[in-house]
Amino acid sequence: HDDDNDGDGEDVSPAAERLRYILSEDDDLPTPTLFTEMDTLQREGDELEWKESARWVKFEEKVEEGGERWSKPHVSTLSLHSLFELRTCLQTGTVLLDLDGYSLPQIVGELYPRQIEEGMLSPDLRGKITFVLLRKHRHQTKKPIHRSLADIGKSSSSTSEISHANLFSHSWLPESDMSPVFLQLKNKFMKKIPRNAEASNVLVGEVDFLNKPFVAFVRLAQATTLGGLTEVPVPTRFLFILLGPQGKAKSYNEIGRAIATLMVDDLFSDVAYKARDREDLIAGIDEFLDEVIVLPPGEWDPKIRIEPPKKVPSADKRWEFYHPAQRGTEISELVYHELGEELAFTGRFCGGLYLDIKRKLPWLPSDFYEGFHIQSISAVLFIYLGCITNAITFGGLLGDATDNYQGVMESFLGTALAGSVFCLFSGQPLIILSSTGPILIFEKLLFEFSKNNNIDYMELRLWIGIHSCLQCFILVATDASYIIKYMTRFTEEGFSSLISFIFISDAIKKMVGSFKYYPINTDFKPDYVTTYKCECLPHTSALSNSLNVTALDWSQLSKKECLKYGGSLVGKSCKYVPDLALMSFILFFGTYTMTVSLKKFKFSRYFPTKVIRKLISDFSIFMSIMTFVGLDMLMGLKTPKLIVPTEFKPTRPDRGWLVMPFGKNPWWIYLASFVPALLVTILIFMDQQISAVIVNRKENKLKKGCGYHLDLFWVGVLMAACSFIGLPWYVAATVISIAHIDSLKMESESSAPGEQPQFLGVREQRVTGILVFVLTGVSIFLAPILKFIPMPVLYGVFLYMGVASLSGIQFWDRIKLYMMPSKHQPDFSFLRHVPLRRVHLFTLVQIICLAVLWILKSTFLAIIFPVMILGLMVVRKMLDMVFSQHDLAWLDDLLPEKEKKKKDDDKKKGKDKKKSRPDNKEEEVRQLKLCCPLKYLCPHCSITGWDTALWKQPHALCHGAVCCGLRTGYSIQWRTQFHLLGQSIHTL
Amino acid sequence: HDDDNDGDGEDVSPAAERLRYILSEDDDLPTPTLFTEMDTLQREGDELEWKESARWVKFEEKVEEGGERWSKPHVSTLSLHSLFELRTCLQTGTVLLDLDGYSLPQIVGELYPRQIEEGMLSPDLRGKITFVLLRKHRHQTKKPIHRSLADIGKSSSSTSEISHANLFSHSWLPESDMSPVFLQLKNKFMKKIPRNAEASNVLVGEVDFLNKPFVAFVRLAQATTLGGLTEVPVPTRFLFILLGPQGKAKSYNEIGRAIATLMVDDLFSDVAYKARDREDLIAGIDEFLDEVIVLPPGEWDPKIRIEPPKKVPSADKRWEFYHPAQRGTEISELVYHELGEELAFTGRFCGGLYLDIKRKLPWLPSDFYEGFHIQSISAVLFIYLGCITNAITFGGLLGDATDNYQGVMESFLGTALAGSVFCLFSGQPLIILSSTGPILIFEKLLFEFSKNNNIDYMELRLWIGIHSCLQCFILVATDASYIIKYMTRFTEEGFSSLISFIFISDAIKKMVGSFKYYPINTDFKPDYVTTYKCECLPHTSALSNSLNVTALDWSQLSKKECLKYGGSLVGKSCKYVPDLALMSFILFFGTYTMTVSLKKFKFSRYFPTKVIRKLISDFSIFMSIMTFVGLDMLMGLKTPKLIVPTEFKPTRPDRGWLVMPFGKNPWWIYLASFVPALLVTILIFMDQQISAVIVNRKENKLKKGCGYHLDLFWVGVLMAACSFIGLPWYVAATVISIAHIDSLKMESESSAPGEQPQFLGVREQRVTGILVFVLTGVSIFLAPILKFIPMPVLYGVFLYMGVASLSGIQFWDRIKLYMMPSKHQPDFSFLRHVPLRRVHLFTLVQIICLAVLWILKSTFLAIIFPVMILGLMVVRKMLDMVFSQHDLAWLDDLLPEKEKKKKDDDKKKGKDKKKSRPDNKEEEVRQLKLCCPLKYLCPHCSITGWDTALWKQPHALCHGAVCCGLRTGYSIQWRTQFHLLGQSIHTL
Repeated sequence: HDDDNDGDGEDVSPAAERLRYILSEDDDLPTPTLFTEMDTLQREGDELEWKESARWVKFEEKVEEGGERWSKPHVSTLSLHSLFELRTCLQTGTVLLDLDGYSLPQIVGELYPRQIEEGMLSPDLRGKITFVLLRKHRHQTKKPIHRSLADIGKSSSSTSEISHANLFSHSWLPESDMSPVFLQLKNKFMKKIPRNAEASNVLVGEVDFLNKPFVAFVRLAQATTLGGLTEVPVPTRFLFILLGPQGKAKSYNEIGRAIATLMVDDLFSDVAYKARDREDLIAGIDEFLDEVIVLPPGEWDPKIRIEPPKKVPSADKRWEFYHPAQRGTEISELVYHELGEELAFTGRFCGGLYLDIKRKLPWLPSDFYEGFHIQSISAVLFIYLGCITNAITFGGLLGDATDNYQGVMESFLGTALAGSVFCLFSGQPLIILSSTGPILIFEKLLFEFSKNNNIDYMELRLWIGIHSCLQCFILVATDASYIIKYMTRFTEEGFSSLISFIFISDAIKKMVGSFKYYPINTDFKPDYVTTYKCECLPHTSALSNSLNVTALDWSQLSKKECLKYGGSLVGKSCKYVPDLALMSFILFFGTYTMTVSLKKFKFSRYFPTKVIRKLISDFSIFMSIMTFVGLDMLMGLKTPKLIVPTEFKPTRPDRGWLVMPFGKNPWWIYLASFVPALLVTILIFMDQQISAVIVNRKENKLKKGCGYHLDLFWVGVLMAACSFIGLPWYVAATVISIAHIDSLKMESESSAPGEQPQFLGVREQRVTGILVFVLTGVSIFLAPILKFIPMPVLYGVFLYMGVASLSGIQFWDRIKLYMMPSKHQPDFSFLRHVPLRRVHLFTLVQIICLAVLWILKSTFLAIIFPVMILGLMVVRKMLDMVFSQHDLAWLDDLLPEKEKKKKDDDKKKGKDKKKSRPDNKEEEVRQLKLCCPLKYLCPHCSITGWDTALWKQPHALCHGAVCCGLRTGYSIQWRTQFHLLGQSIHTL
Repeated sequence: HDDDNDGDGEDVSPAAERLRYILSEDDDLPTPTLFTEMDTLQREGDELEWKESARWVKFEEKVEEGGERWSKPHVSTLSLHSLFELRTCLQTGTVLLDLDGYSLPQIVGELYPRQIEEGMLSPDLRGKITFVLLRKHRHQTKKPIHRSLADIGKSSSSTSEISHANLFSHSWLPESDMSPVFLQLKNKFMKKIPRNAEASNVLVGEVDFLNKPFVAFVRLAQATTLGGLTEVPVPTRFLFILLGPQGKAKSYNEIGRAIATLMVDDLFSDVAYKARDREDLIAGIDEFLDEVIVLPPGEWDPKIRIEPPKKVPSADKRWEFYHPAQRGTEISELVYHELGEELAFTGRFCGGLYLDIKRKLPWLPSDFYEGFHIQSISAVLFIYLGCITNAITFGGLLGDATDNYQGVMESFLGTALAGSVFCLFSGQPLIILSSTGPILIFEKLLFEFSKNNNIDYMELRLWIGIHSCLQCFILVATDASYIIKYMTRFTEEGFSSLISFIFISDAIKKMVGSFKYYPINTDFKPDYVTTYKCECLPHTSALSNSLNVTALDWSQLSKKECLKYGGSLVGKSCKYVPDLALMSFILFFGTYTMTVSLKKFKFSRYFPTKVIRKLISDFSIFMSIMTFVGLDMLMGLKTPKLIVPTEFKPTRPDRGWLVMPFGKNPWWIYLASFVPALLVTILIFMDQQISAVIVNRKENKLKKGCGYHLDLFWVGVLMAACSFIGLPWYVAATVISIAHIDSLKMESESSAPGEQPQFLGVREQRVTGILVFVLTGVSIFLAPILKFIPMPVLYGVFLYMGVASLSGIQFWDRIKLYMMPSKHQPDFSFLRHVPLRRVHLFTLVQIICLAVLWILKSTFLAIIFPVMILGLMVVRKMLDMVFSQHDLAWLDDLLPEKEKKKKDDDKKKGKDKKKSRPDNKEEEVRQLKLCCPLKYLCPHCSITGWDTALWKQPHALCHGAVCCGLRTGYSIQWRTQFHLLGQSIHTL
């Protein structure tokens, strides 16, 4: 009664054909997710009862009998045996599809007629089976701890076993319905099950009155809640019952596991919902068997529970085959190196800027309300601390460089102003503005130049700012940002690792500096403490100079006063400061180490909920800072603390808040400042846009788009504004921006037990950024609190930021490969496709470039730093001559013109069978799908999915439509075999 | 022509029957291990060639085409497809068994006759096939790095591809034979292959001239080296060739992988060696299919490479089934709580001691020559440092307690003497003797007692030693150590974690102490350095006292001198010592942290060879010590250093080296000292034997046995000896002994790629122990070197030792469970069998016991410390009333009488079907094997191995021999199915 494969033109296995028919019928409603529970019949004392033994949402969770607990979710490993036995069960047993059932006794009553009719079951067993099937169900539920404590007195585990579990009375009796329902509702497992889920119940057990197994598979017309049948309040749609003669419990269990695993299979559950008859179900099993993965018995122990994989194959691909109409619609584009339409050259005046605004405007409301989330608090704290550390550091350095024309006060004010304006109006509010090294060096050189040539620094700077702002506007108006397209991973990595190294080296330099600032007296001998002192002796000349001085009590003077009054310090202990250097080191290293350890806490097993672990991880920096601030306060040592200006006035008393554009310099200076402004513009443009590219990376899964032109526009405006008020200039800071992104990453709540949480994207909003900068501004008033933070703690945070931003870079992974023997190297995809020596060579080029950049940065050439990034792009261009495009596609991205060329080539190659490479997968899939619309059509494709990664020569498969008609060799044989196998089992 | 399953009494599948027949034939020679190489036909330029694409020793290693490298070893995941296709291939193709082949061309020549005869192959294709089969073979070999560098200039990877690999010319031509053989011999992979291995070569490829596949399976009569066919110089025994029409390369590859996986399967390779005909091979595949593990397609991505498991199922179990004669011989005993025959009560005078000597004597030579190993060096250094730290610490404390009657000098000497004698003659030379806390407390109390009562301490102590020694002899002579049997894991864990806590708390106390010893001036203000000084002012009374004193230059005196001459120290800096406390902390914490990190290095990916990683891990403590000693020297601070006595004389000048027994105390003291001696004896007995039990634990896999009686004998002798020379008393030190064991652990060199190294045991020898104590003795002369070691570094080592010995204890794992939510808990086997709340309760009892012990230890009751261990044993006895024996068997060990009872019970229960529990596995296996001698005999056992863990109710399976004859339900059906399946494939 099975339709045969009698050459109907299409060479599809009958099972597949069946499935295609039923699955393509109506796709209006997606089938609900199935929760499967398996109960086994057990004797508890003198009572028979159904005890839950396993459950599936996607993966299997087993009840550990002895441990009275759930196992971890794991992949169900089955035996071929059980699958074949299940197939037989479905062939011989009762199959009732779309039964109108409202209660368990009624459903059970419907099961026998056919079996009795066919003589499979003697009518007198009916009562016994009904009795067994209506026994109460006991579920494995969590026991509250106070009840566990009550058990302590009980010595034997066997006597207390019954009381440990929640017993359900006969669930179909209305009077006792409340209890199981109440327990069901209390079950916290419910939140792991999707809202619209339905249940399938598998009941297996051995009884003494049967000598042949009794099997039934029931699909209800409507999903119905059958009392306490299921542990969660989910309506039951499917019922599988297997009762058999005694002695084969283990085998029945395995069959139960097999049907349960099938029921949670995406494809089979679809089949089960849509099956018209028994044969459709059998066809579903056959197709399942067709796709199973087999492990050899000698290489794997079946007792090992396999942890759920990070990613399971998408059901869509498998499903697609049965929906010929929908095929080809979901082809995802192969993304070579896509920066998105944001960087397209519009050719119109301000075309890019217009598009940026048009793109970002609709998101504006959500940019605010999406910011209200607990995660934002930790992000704000983290970035705030980074920002003020930066502001203080650069403020201090700028103050030194410009004779306090721009000091810490200006730095704070500028950061707050520029940052909040940028976060409010920019195209990419996740970018954090900050002073950067190149700007600092430029200011330093400019100040020296002005001083030497008697030019007024502030006025000159104002004009440079104005010019630079105008130049930025020109760049914006002409869509010049599109050249960022030529910046590949090579350039990005070079830039961002350079910045990371600067962070790391600065942090370490500062730390080492404190050993110089607080020298340790290494010759100190505790016993000779009497010989260490430091006395202030009046200088002989000072003595004679003034009467005032002689009147001083020299021994009471502090070190500074002593030197001020011209005294000299004499003694062994004068140049040493005890403890502070070592304490600084402990604070610095402790903060760094603790942050690193706490970050790892997310993956630890401790603490009850994921939320707490995530909080600890998110707040790791904050907690480390608090811990070491606390330690520092406890010790009470005078370690260097964060100093925040407390009064709102320019650092240098002789300047006001506004800089006047005219009056102090000759007129030609106003025009000539165009030239240095050009340098500043290039510097700002490169610095800003590279950081933006890094932030906008595809991996970050940003959804609201970016706005390179809009960003640059605002940077230009802020340039001019800051120049007028005499504040430092600001551009995007790579490391802090990355930290900002990282602290706002969202992960999915994993639904099915065992499923991995997915990275969903970044909480894109403007609130965190604005808050950070408002706080920075307010910090001037927070000085009483902030003054407790020791500087070494902040250097520790700096070190962490540098290391953390380095560790995400592929370049760094490749450097580590140098130190690993090849057999221990991780399974990076580029290692599968590019020979190791080419990888090493590419890395070496990057290292050399970086070394050159580092050396240049350390000299006065630092000012042309952004131009050097252009140099990196030239080096990358030259790499095209050394590396094949194939290798570069894996290690880097392709340059736009090459990419276009390669795409063209691929199209050409598509016609040339032999030379095609497996990299241009998408093209292959497309061609294959065009030519071979059905999976089994071409006898050459003896594989089961649309997965091109498995094919070596896909074009050979679809060399026109000709080959599709061929019927040779093994694949026909295989199908015939399988078909026969099907029949041989049918006929049993 | 397949013999049918026509009711021949035994219900075995025909395939299994076939296998049993051929496998049981002659078992004289074990079949060699097979190395399998798969080569695929590829077009390189215009040339066809065979390129190695994968290899198997046990697991699969694939050639990454693009990456030109070997993948990591992984479990071969196959598809059912390919296995069935392979089955068809073997049915239709040429199968030549025991072919006399000496070269590839000759073998190829033998392949055609049958195929041509049967019309499967047209004769004109013969030449073409021969041509293809004799193409050269290219193997994936490692490329030397200098050659890789030479490639740098080449831009296209495609042009350089040919030159990258080692091309073999036609290997059967004698003139070119040298090159491949040379390359084969150079191949370092050879050392991964067992010595007697043979090769099986799998050749698959698609050609354009065939329209039907050409298949051949060849077994050579003698394994023959066929030139460059194989990458390693291993003779080829099997050849599988599959050539087919174009377009199905992927499918051929999968078939090739399937046969290769089968060839390395322990059971199938046996079948392949012994097969008489084609049907035997098919039967082998069928049995393989019978055992495979199936993963559902929706839960596992076939592209994921599965890492080899830690343990694979033993081939013996699978093999056993086919050797009915040998079955039942290899039943491994279920070990309940076995301390071995060493603790049997002989009932004879000195019976235990005699047996100990008899047992250990034969090992004596190997105890010496086995000590010469690189690992011993690190062990000696590690333990040496532990020992001298211990000797110094206890020496110092004893000196304090006994008014220097026993000081550091005595401690060093005693440690050296007692330790080396014990290591030379004892029953368990891995035990390290040391002073312990209880002894220290006893000495302290004894000294105070003597002093208050005017009794000579040394003479009293001598008499106590003599009495105690005699009491030890009595204990030895009466085999009293057998009571150690009653010490279960509960007691051991209590004892060893208490000792670990003492180590940890001592280390931390010492560290905190240094903050007291070197107080930090937290009020120090760097600016007011002028106000800090410490002046020595002469005391007014001192001034008037003597003229001598006034002549002193008071300001030149050191602190000590000042106080000595009665001066007083005045000034702010007098009571402070800068830097030393913080530096000590850095050294302490740094040593600990670095040791922990380096220990983990063994599992890291870095460094070329495992040897170096292992060295780093073994020497971690030494390297940490060296690093921080170096740092300390670099800083040059006066941190407290290790002080070793340099002159060989008693610490107290008024005592000599020998203690005279008579003369100083009244005569009755000689007799009365029997009472305190009894306390000492109990103390020593418990301390010694518990440590010995911990060292002799089953987990350590000691092979040379132990000697509790012999150990105690020598401890007694050393007691007396040390008392005569006036040295401290010594017993086994738990923590250092565990560290000794840990540093001598051996692991197997993993043979097949992907196989996990196994813990083999401990390097049991006397050399390391002796060297440690000789070095300790010599240390008196090493003072100039040792004096550079700062004490905080040694405290760091102490901390590490305490933490490390704690982390191996199950008790500690269970404590951690308190802090984990149950779904994150690791998969401990006891958690599968004991409810979590019982586990928690058990742990709680242990914690309480430990807390009580800790409190007692801190009071004067510490002297009855060993008696408290007896208390632990009483608590354990009471636990029998609270916990079921089942739970205790998992969490602890059973007490001897309970164990016996439980065994008896199990025997009784064996007759009572319902109540049997899966824990007493061995009994079940035994019974099952007795009753069901054949695997398929009982239709109820629908599983394939002798693995009892899979069965819930094994007794039900073998309820007498009755059930074995039944033929009901599914298992018969399954077998018939499988048989039919076999036939359906046969008949194609």
